[in-house]
Amino acid sequence: MEELVVTTDHTSYPVFIGEGIRHQCSSLLYDILKERSKVLIITDETVAELYADDVVRSVSNALSAGVCKVPSGETSKSMDVYHKVMTACIQEGLDRQSIIIALGGGVIGDLAGFAAATYMRGIPFIQMPTTLLAQDSSVGGKTGINHELGKNLIGAFHQPAAVLYDTETLHTLPDKEWRSGFAEMIKHAYIKDPEFLTWLKENVHSLEDIKDSQLLRFLKRSIAIKAEIVKEDEKESGVRAFLNFGHTLGHAVEKESGYGGMTHGEAVAAGMIFAMKVSNRLGYSKWDVTQEAEWLKALGYPIEAPSQYSSHQLIEVMKNDKKASKGNITFVLLEKPGSPFLETVDERTLAHILEETKEGGVI
Amino acid sequence: MEELVVTTDHTSYPVFIGEGIRHQCSSLLYDILKERSKVLIITDETVAELYADDVVRSVSNALSAGVCKVPSGETSKSMDVYHKVMTACIQEGLDRQSIIIALGGGVIGDLAGFAAATYMRGIPFIQMPTTLLAQDSSVGGKTGINHELGKNLIGAFHQPAAVLYDTETLHTLPDKEWRSGFAEMIKHAYIKDPEFLTWLKENVHSLEDIKDSQLLRFLKRSIAIKAEIVKEDEKESGVRAFLNFGHTLGHAVEKESGYGGMTHGEAVAAGMIFAMKVSNRLGYSKWDVTQEAEWLKALGYPIEAPSQYSSHQLIEVMKNDKKASKGNITFVLLEKPGSPFLETVDERTLAHILEETKEGGVI
Repeated sequence: MEELVVTTDHTSYPVFIGEGIRHQCSSLLYDILKERSKVLIITDETVAELYADDVVRSVSNALSAGVCKVPSGETSKSMDVYHKVMTACIQEGLDRQSIIIALGGGVIGDLAGFAAATYMRGIPFIQMPTTLLAQDSSVGGKTGINHELGKNLIGAFHQPAAVLYDTETLHTLPDKEWRSGFAEMIKHAYIKDPEFLTWLKENVHSLEDIKDSQLLRFLKRSIAIKAEIVKEDEKESGVRAFLNFGHTLGHAVEKESGYGGMTHGEAVAAGMIFAMKVSNRLGYSKWDVTQEAEWLKALGYPIEAPSQYSSHQLIEVMKNDKKASKGNITFVLLEKPGSPFLETVDERTLAHILEETKEGGVI
Repeated sequence: MEELVVTTDHTSYPVFIGEGIRHQCSSLLYDILKERSKVLIITDETVAELYADDVVRSVSNALSAGVCKVPSGETSKSMDVYHKVMTACIQEGLDRQSIIIALGGGVIGDLAGFAAATYMRGIPFIQMPTTLLAQDSSVGGKTGINHELGKNLIGAFHQPAAVLYDTETLHTLPDKEWRSGFAEMIKHAYIKDPEFLTWLKENVHSLEDIKDSQLLRFLKRSIAIKAEIVKEDEKESGVRAFLNFGHTLGHAVEKESGYGGMTHGEAVAAGMIFAMKVSNRLGYSKWDVTQEAEWLKALGYPIEAPSQYSSHQLIEVMKNDKKASKGNITFVLLEKPGSPFLETVDERTLAHILEETKEGGVI
């Protein structure tokens, strides 16, 4: 088992990473659970069937546990499902001394985290990610749900009391989900760790290469990068914004494909390539975009996806993104691996590059 | 104009109290507004008609202002109206550099404050209370909405960036609203300031006595008490809980009367008298409950209201109150003015006192 600690201005919490550790909740989380009145495990239907019983058994040594199941998929990050989760919290009798466990992927972490942030003005929660993507989102305290008009527009910063990451749960994931999660690891490497990036490019040529014995090492390095950035800037007023590399267009593509259509990581991969093009176009960098794109394509990322959608529509969505300021669209650009910066990009430049992509140009 | 400062662990903010100061937003709030991209004034239909134009004009010197109107009354503290407010924030183009103004009574302060706490994971907001009751709720950072199963069960702690209290707006209030707000001032006196309590009892024999020239002095003292308690305990883990004096039964009565049926302060007044009875019954105090009740009745408080409702039902609601812990019902009791403490009270005792009240006993 690997262990690391995330520290912010107001709190710090442990991250446990290991095979089969979902069976060790009551020992690993003893200090956190011991003074709590009750735990509610919030999970989705798919994950519930696989792991909910294990977790209930594992925490039941410490305290009484209920389970709240929501439908699987991004559509559960809605106001309607949030409302139902709050109802479940009340009906299960949670009080201010209770605690929530988010058992599932990023959708569950965001939804259950937001429920914890706002139930009775805030109770603690534990992240138990079960997807590769959630290695990223489970650390750092961002919680929230979607609005019909944009992703993650409703939410709160609420750090978990602990993250318990059982890598055994990853083995049942479909390839699409491995790809989605691996995109965020690649992103961490791009923005913060050129050495890690080189190492990934040399060693990972297919999804199978991710799943092997190097996985724990990948994960620990990736989470450590995230933890470093969160430590510097919990509320995203500075460097934390660099974690949005690939996300400005990524979120727009994800939205246009219909939440749940394209995976988050797939959209982000396309967004990273797009950001490199923007970076080149504005004269900040000399990326060999074709080469970067080839590596991602070999891993199965649909990086030409943005060309399927209306440029105008993608730009409108980007303007409504919560990172937008005064109607301007801000991108994280990369001069080279490890050197990110923020830049406001005008609509015309974006439209131009999007149109070029459509015509099969640029790459 | 009176001015005081509220300080918490993480922030501090000014409270301005004065006649007609809604016309001075851009000067009084200059430091807060100057770096903001946009302001959205959230208000209700009644208040909008009276004061929204004044505030728009007053802030327009500093920055662009939109107005979002919701229906008047407690029913707007719903998930549905909250959703609509978030939609308005998006459609008005608010970004992370924007700010919200809550212009209205406690309902608007709670709703708009919760919107600010959760829009894009939190943007700042300004409280502009327009009722006497909101002198209390506008200070201290409690925000939230109701769930069908209980009041204020969904919310967040989010301190305002400033409170601007134009007492001219109080003159249009109906007596019921003066009574509601005055109950919280009485409560502050009961739990923290025996001298203030004596002074109120000697000088206030009718609602008209509140409205006169002493009002600014009352308000400043009442808000200062609240600020002192919030400073000591922002997140309600200790002394702040004493502010719930009268609220355990108060919330239950308010809920049973249908939100909007009995005013908050009216229910709290009944709750304070009930808490004194509980305090006596458990041997902690020797309140002359009849005398305390007479004073409140003379001011028009319906302190016998709890006898209209089923004791069983009131107790069930109290058990779901978010101050309840592990299913126990916790009361703020008073040994004497200025000496509050927390006590878990068993259901049987509560049922007994509620039944006695029904039979016209005890008082």
